[in-house]
Amino acid sequence: MEEMAGSKRKMEQQPTLKLYYFDIKGKGECIRLICSYSGLELNDHRFSSRDEFLAMKEGTRLQFGQVPMLEVDGKHTMVQSNSIMRYLGKLSGLYPTTDHILAQKVDAVMDQATDVFTGSSILKYGPRYAIELTPEAKEKSYEHYNQTVLPTHLRKVERYFSKSSTGWIAGTVEPSPADFVWYTSLINMKNHKELTQKIKNLEDYPKIKVFMKKFESLESIKEYYENSSK
Amino acid sequence: MEEMAGSKRKMEQQPTLKLYYFDIKGKGECIRLICSYSGLELNDHRFSSRDEFLAMKEGTRLQFGQVPMLEVDGKHTMVQSNSIMRYLGKLSGLYPTTDHILAQKVDAVMDQATDVFTGSSILKYGPRYAIELTPEAKEKSYEHYNQTVLPTHLRKVERYFSKSSTGWIAGTVEPSPADFVWYTSLINMKNHKELTQKIKNLEDYPKIKVFMKKFESLESIKEYYENSSK
Repeated sequence: MEEMAGSKRKMEQQPTLKLYYFDIKGKGECIRLICSYSGLELNDHRFSSRDEFLAMKEGTRLQFGQVPMLEVDGKHTMVQSNSIMRYLGKLSGLYPTTDHILAQKVDAVMDQATDVFTGSSILKYGPRYAIELTPEAKEKSYEHYNQTVLPTHLRKVERYFSKSSTGWIAGTVEPSPADFVWYTSLINMKNHKELTQKIKNLEDYPKIKVFMKKFESLESIKEYYENSSK
Repeated sequence: MEEMAGSKRKMEQQPTLKLYYFDIKGKGECIRLICSYSGLELNDHRFSSRDEFLAMKEGTRLQFGQVPMLEVDGKHTMVQSNSIMRYLGKLSGLYPTTDHILAQKVDAVMDQATDVFTGSSILKYGPRYAIELTPEAKEKSYEHYNQTVLPTHLRKVERYFSKSSTGWIAGTVEPSPADFVWYTSLINMKNHKELTQKIKNLEDYPKIKVFMKKFESLESIKEYYENSSK
């Protein structure tokens, strides 16, 4: 049912959307998924190599040197994935534009994803944030992250799902941008090799597990993964 | 002129807004400032002590244990300051609700503030993110942050202001939520004692300096600081 709404939403006249990102899931995947679900046409440009990205970074196209970058109508360049998700949510009708209180909730759970995974970003890309860790400090930090920080956050996320009557994180009727962001973050978490199997299996978070299944059962998402795994 | 628009915006019927935060600038200040500028009435509850906050955290009121928390009409609890700022921007007319491309830009520069200051948050509150730094590692990290990471980011911010025809960061006619967030972040940066004086003085960033002056010259902001410094 929801899925049909998704397909019917397809617009006669949508802006031209071109995504620039690596050929990985990472922070770009939620952009691909929301387009796929809502029927927005997306030119999904994946860099063929790191060199292609670096060459582009040297040029003028990647104004802020950041990806994911979404180019709209060949002239507007958008960065910051949550902000891009909000924009696409408005285009596709998946972001609440009249209920500002609900919109704030959608925004807050998206920003919460950033908070939750700041620790793992730092552990992976420390120097980008000026954080230099010795191997010992890194190991100790991962332990603390796995044992305390991540579970504390995930319990809060579990609570969001417990309170939702629809199974979507902010309680929206259809998935909101926040669901696409959370799904992608959790998939990325599963690919992070230093995290414990217990966390990756979401053992203590049954509601989050149900969400992942629900999300993956959406027709358009199944189709997307069937095609993209070719 | 802009200021008059700000005062005239005062709503006949606004939701009741109550902010819960510490008696510091921190992440709560931008909420106070946007209300002050736009004429939104705000009950600015400042914890009288850390114990008051902890007691509240134990209770049911701070659902997510986080502050700043904005209570709306005594029943909706909002967390995540950028999301709160977007909500208040919609209430006050300072957030673009019809131009989605402009709204994305406002959102992106707000999220960029989070990115820029992630390094300094980690250096201050490492364990919260599971990052354990020895005093030596901390010192080395601060050096890298001061010398490279922060200047790289601030140059990008300088570029935003260079491109703006209005002096506001996203090029909006009036200050957008992003300007309140940036002003607050930069003030907090000045209070961070481990950062170099050169950075705090914004020596290499003349456009940002102009922005700070412009912001502080707004009538309502001047008034706010005259009253709050009592």
